[in-house]
This record gives sequence, structure tokens and C-alpha cells, in this order.
Amino acid sequence: MPPERVTVPAADLQELVAAIYTAHGLRDADAAVLARVLVWANLRGIDSHGVSRALRYVELCEKGDANARPEIRIERPRPAVLAVDGDRAPGPVALNAAMEAAIETARETGVAWAEVGATTLTGAVGYYTSLAAEQGMVGLCMVAGMPNMGYEGARGAAVATSPLSIAVPAERHPTVLLDMATAIIALGKITQLKNQGKELPPGVAATKDGEPTTDPELAAVPLPLGGAKGSGMSLVFELVTSVLTGNAIVSAFHGGDKRHRQNGAVVALDVAAFADPGEFRRGVDETLDALKALPRMDEEAEIRFPGERGAATEAERRANGIPLTKKVWESLAAEAEKLGVAVPTA
Amino acid sequence: MPPERVTVPAADLQELVAAIYTAHGLRDADAAVLARVLVWANLRGIDSHGVSRALRYVELCEKGDANARPEIRIERPRPAVLAVDGDRAPGPVALNAAMEAAIETARETGVAWAEVGATTLTGAVGYYTSLAAEQGMVGLCMVAGMPNMGYEGARGAAVATSPLSIAVPAERHPTVLLDMATAIIALGKITQLKNQGKELPPGVAATKDGEPTTDPELAAVPLPLGGAKGSGMSLVFELVTSVLTGNAIVSAFHGGDKRHRQNGAVVALDVAAFADPGEFRRGVDETLDALKALPRMDEEAEIRFPGERGAATEAERRANGIPLTKKVWESLAAEAEKLGVAVPTA
Repeated sequence: MPPERVTVPAADLQELVAAIYTAHGLRDADAAVLARVLVWANLRGIDSHGVSRALRYVELCEKGDANARPEIRIERPRPAVLAVDGDRAPGPVALNAAMEAAIETARETGVAWAEVGATTLTGAVGYYTSLAAEQGMVGLCMVAGMPNMGYEGARGAAVATSPLSIAVPAERHPTVLLDMATAIIALGKITQLKNQGKELPPGVAATKDGEPTTDPELAAVPLPLGGAKGSGMSLVFELVTSVLTGNAIVSAFHGGDKRHRQNGAVVALDVAAFADPGEFRRGVDETLDALKALPRMDEEAEIRFPGERGAATEAERRANGIPLTKKVWESLAAEAEKLGVAVPTA
Repeated sequence: MPPERVTVPAADLQELVAAIYTAHGLRDADAAVLARVLVWANLRGIDSHGVSRALRYVELCEKGDANARPEIRIERPRPAVLAVDGDRAPGPVALNAAMEAAIETARETGVAWAEVGATTLTGAVGYYTSLAAEQGMVGLCMVAGMPNMGYEGARGAAVATSPLSIAVPAERHPTVLLDMATAIIALGKITQLKNQGKELPPGVAATKDGEPTTDPELAAVPLPLGGAKGSGMSLVFELVTSVLTGNAIVSAFHGGDKRHRQNGAVVALDVAAFADPGEFRRGVDETLDALKALPRMDEEAEIRFPGERGAATEAERRANGIPLTKKVWESLAAEAEKLGVAVPTA
């Protein structure tokens, strides 16, 4: 039986979550960004990265892993690169600031690469690359986090399910928005199968001791996408973000330092430096049209491009509200009441 | 029974292949680069992308798909981006020039992104990113080619097995060199299993009509890595390279234009803009050490990082020569004799 749901308008949810953060000491602007990134994930149907995680940031701040009032510093050591010190900000606050600065810089230099060190829980990375696409640019983001995934040939959690996102603007079609973890299965999917009492497919997860398992009760570690490929991507993201910003996670973690932190890199590439932007976006449309017109594997199942389903979900949820499990809604409402924050009607 | 092999010193092979190209009208410098990229692939153990493909470039030039005497133009529309018109050069000639220019530019701007339009068969993309790593930079390369891979939900060849490569320099360890196709299985691996009379694993390939198959005789189309993930990566690489350089492949191909061409993008990110380069490389070493010290899935099987095995093969083959199948060697020798080019003793 699916859990009971309540439906909340996106604007109300945004206001509620931002007010909870403000009450916890975040600056108004930071609280708004953090709430916006979470609500965006819900709008896009990525509920695992939505407001169900809202209170996790409060916990991270209370534990001292995250900083409720960060002083984010953005330096520009050379014309096209930005060094962003996240000061343990809630991830979305730092990544959003980094991508906004990268977009501004790329208007001048054609491309800008921002390294973001010392952040926390990044959220749905597609949000940041979408910011670039909204400005007619290509956005790219890679992130490194706490080891929670296998690595080809190793036992147990070795590297992180670190995601890659690339966003490309289109004209008639919604933005092409690739947002993929380097694991073969999402942790949220394992939980879902567990709740449904179903087995995992073989080869997607291991127990905490590294033994392959199809039992979702025992599955602790998702395996990397394509073995060496997902392993390699995750490792390289760690090197290019964590090690490059002087905030290594993998080596520290396996040395015993398991304090939560993340790092990332965001890139904005200005299409206008190479091509007429309208012509480019129409070329993107043509490619998507060609793909969608191909013979289908299943006659009934449309061929989709990355971000297409998310855009449809967003349109529907902007119009009709965001469905939340009663559990998520009640935890937010309880927190709001505790803080004296007004709770909208769901 | 494995095919009979001959062993050729790398320098002799380089000289032979370059001389064949010169005899076919390539400029000396271009012939040397093209031979070097092919021989590098053999040195690294990527024999599918080595000199077995040498005569394919001759064919491409004779068909008019490639241009033996290209006029490669490199423009710099904004400080950190390069627009490279490949003029249908043999891929390695254009990609090598693009990465060299990107490295020079990145010294000044911190990062440089070069779009390379209108090239042909790219070769082993790890070569270009390695050039950046040799200069202490992070190198990134993505390529788009002719549709030869499935796409989630579509039948038949829809997009290309377009690769991604990222190279990161280390200090004690060899360069970390990720070089991965977006397919779940290499075309070369399918051929290998066919030659061995073995079945394919399930879920890795389809017939030309898009039916899943484990019969290597019928397998025509490798499937994308992780379904939507590999599909999405390949699509995005097409958009960011082919469409952005005005040389769309996927839409043209499905519209009936099946003429061979490729496009790519190379990026150089200068580590020195963010960190002390030596400290960074030692941080990379520490991460690799931590990974290699993890509990092993199989006690006997070392945990490896991307590029580690290739570096070992390179050291061995530089010392002892490159093993080639007799068939590959004889086709090169026959071509050389036809052209009056001296053939070294194998």
C-alpha cells in the first residue's frame, strides 16, 4: 500500500522550508536558496533529494558539520577560474553562488570553471546546471561526497555515488538535463524495493562486508555503474574536486575521519561564444526530434531524453502542488510549530 | 588458438606508419602525430585503437571523408575558448592541435575549452587528455561519432559509443587516466567473443533490428552503459560537440546522411590556478594509496585505478616492443611495399 500523501503548493512549501531555516539562524537569502533547491527537486520528481531532506541540514548545522552562517569567499585566481571556499555552507548555498559567478564570468571569457571546496550535502545537482541552461549556456557539475558506494575490486564502501550533471538548452523542447549518479542503483531505489518487499536485481548492491546480495534488507552499498567505469568516474570527481580544493574526502575517510563534507565543481560554457544561440537551440531540438522519431523498443513507450520526464513533472506539480508523504509533511509541520513558524494548509 | 604475433619496436612502428602516411600525401608533421596517437594506443594495450586502424585513415582520405592536407583553423572568440575547424583532418591531427592550444591558453586563463568541429575517426581519446596531465593539468575530452550504439527505448543504432576521458596527474603513481565509452561493451570485445566462439553476457547487445541477443554473430549494436545513463551521456556529448560546432551527426544520420565524421571537445584545467601543483599530485597519490589499500574483493586481485594497467603495459611494450597480429603487420608491410616505403624487421 503506498503511503498516504498530502499535496502542498510549491510556493507554500518554499515559504515554510525557508522560514524553518531562518528560524534556525540562516540568513534570509541563504534560507531561500536552500529551500528553492529542495523544492525544485520535488517539482522535478526527484523526491529523494527534496524537502524530505530539509531537516538533515538542520542536523548538520547542529552537529557543526555544516555552518548556518557561512562566509562564502569567491576568488578569481585567473580570468576563467573561480576558487570558491564554501565555509561548510549548506551545499545548495555554495553551489548556487558558484554557478551564478561562473555564468557571469563565462559571459566574458566563454567558459568558467568554479571549484567549490568545503560544502555539505549538495542536493539535486541538476538545479545548478539548469541555472546555466536558463541563461542559454551549457552547464556542467560534478560533485564528490562521503564514500557510500563500492569500487571495482574493493570490498565495502570505497568511493561516493558522486553525480555528474550536464544541462543543454533547447528551443521548443525543455532543457536537456542529464543528472546521473555513478552508482548502478540509487540508495533511494534500494529503500523503495525494501519497502515493497521486493528483491534487488543481481549485481547492483553488496552487503556492508562487500558480499553481493539481492536482499534489500542486507544491501548496504550500491555498486558502481559498469564496474570500472562508474568506479573511475567517482574517483576522478574526487580528485578534480576534493583533492584540488585541498579537502580530500576518500583518503581522509579511509584514514578514519568520517565527518560529513562534500566538494564540487561547476562549469558554465557560453554557447554564444561559438554559435548563434537560437540556431544552436534549434539544432538541439532537431537532434531530439530525430531521436524521438526512431523505431521504439516498445511501441507504447515514448523515447525520452534526459530531463524530459522531469520537465513534465515540474509543469504538473507547479500547477497542482507537490505530493508529499504524510510522514515528511508531518515532520516539517512539527518542526515549524516547535519554532513558531506558520504552517500552510496542505 | 590465439592469432600468431610479431613484435615490433615502438620507434620502428612509428616510423613505418608515419612514412605510409607521408607517402599518401600527409604533411610530415601530421603524419607523425597520427602515427604517434595510433602507436600510443598499442603501447597502452588499447590494440583496437592502434595501428590496426592505420589504413582506415587512408581509406577515409581516398573516399573524401577525411582530408589528407587539412587547413586546421583555431580561433579564440573569447579569452578561454577555442573554436577549432578540423577541416576533416584525420581526428588525431585536429584533436592534438586543439589540446596543445587549450593547454597554452589555460596557462593564462586557468581553464580553456576547445570545440573541435569536422574531424574524423578520433582514435584513443586518452592520448589528448594525457597531454594535459603531462603539463600538470587536468585534461578532459568528449567526442561524438557515427551512431553505432542503442539508446534507451529505441531500436537499432541510435547514438554513438562516444567516449569520455579525464586525466589527472599524480606524483609517484602514473597519471590517473579515465577513458571510457558510453556503451556497456566495446565493439572490439564483441568481435573477440565471436572469434572465441563464446556467448555474450545478456543485456549488452542487440541485433541490427534492435532485438536483444547473446549471439555474437548477430550482435550488431552494443547497448548503452546503464540504459538511460549511457544513452544520456552520448546524447549530451553530441549536443555539446556536434551541434555546437554546427556539424550535427545524429539528426543528419537519421535523415539519411551517413557520411563518416566526428566532433569533439577538449578541456585543459590548470591545477596551478588553484593549488600548489606538487601538493596536488601528492594528494592524488594519497587517494590512490588509500584506495589500493582497501580490503579486496578477491585477495589475489589488486585494486586498480584508471590508467594503471595501461601505464604498466606501456612500460613493458616500450622496453620489449609492441606485439601485433600477423594480419595487422602484414597489411602494413604490404602497404609500405606498395608505396616503396622501407619495412623494418619485426
